Amino acid sequence: MADHGPPLHDALVPLAGLLGVFEGEGRGDYPTIEAFGYRERVTFTHVGKPFLAYQQRTWHPEHGGPMHAETGYLRLPAPGVAELVLAHPTGIVEVEEGTLTDGVLRLATSSIGLTGTAKQVRSLRREFVLEADTLTYDVWMAYDTVPETHHLHARLRRVT
Amino acid sequence: MADHGPPLHDALVPLAGLLGVFEGEGRGDYPTIEAFGYRERVTFTHVGKPFLAYQQRTWHPEHGGPMHAETGYLRLPAPGVAELVLAHPTGIVEVEEGTLTDGVLRLATSSIGLTGTAKQVRSLRREFVLEADTLTYDVWMAYDTVPETHHLHARLRRVT
Repeated sequence: MADHGPPLHDALVPLAGLLGVFEGEGRGDYPTIEAFGYRERVTFTHVGKPFLAYQQRTWHPEHGGPMHAETGYLRLPAPGVAELVLAHPTGIVEVEEGTLTDGVLRLATSSIGLTGTAKQVRSLRREFVLEADTLTYDVWMAYDTVPETHHLHARLRRVT
Repeated sequence: MADHGPPLHDALVPLAGLLGVFEGEGRGDYPTIEAFGYRERVTFTHVGKPFLAYQQRTWHPEHGGPMHAETGYLRLPAPGVAELVLAHPTGIVEVEEGTLTDGVLRLATSSIGLTGTAKQVRSLRREFVLEADTLTYDVWMAYDTVPETHHLHARLRRVT
């Protein structure tokens, strides 16, 4: 957890455990692709205002080449209510809305935006669970004609 | 310009001049608010894949408190064609599409996504001009019932 800089905004106290850097491994699968593994780093920071900045990058587990990335912001506009806005380098943006209950963040796209050249992602749903210094998450995706299907699971440990 | 790390993806060569960090001052105005000034830092980085990562932060010009922030990715899916996907901590995401012509990047929202608590931004349009080490930009916005109106102008200089 950051121990310098401005104090954490009161609205973010229920998310204070996310502040820092998490690293670990994940695996992905989907009906249209071969299963794959990845290494991941997730960073949550704050500037004293009522949002956390979120950045994520993944790398190939063997050759270390860059794979996915995401960047955006997480807010708690009311107790237990969560909003996540995200951009992907694949030309996708997401508005995800949901809940924070007992340390579990459950979010699903209320809207998704695609550039003209982006893949036809229809919806995403995410669940983040923080227990002590372990952050696990799952992502479900609807893509093109495939209905919502489990896509990603990762288990990360706090490194700072 | 970054001179280490992986080589720049061929598709990004027309944007190579953006790689680095730019800082400077901007001013904002809009019919619904008082005019304001800000200090800004903009960063463009790459990882060898066909997108630039874009991060922006602004600070109050006097007391230095954080003001706005944005984060996302810029792509050139075909020569002269530009796509920018962005998330804002105010609960807004943008898909902007447009052109890169003679060093001028012209982009406008093809879609915009808002969380349930976000302000009613209807559309955004941006123009970035890079001349030597000076990056200037303008932003126009339609908000609630106000039609598209000039909102922001900034002039930044390369610092790295």
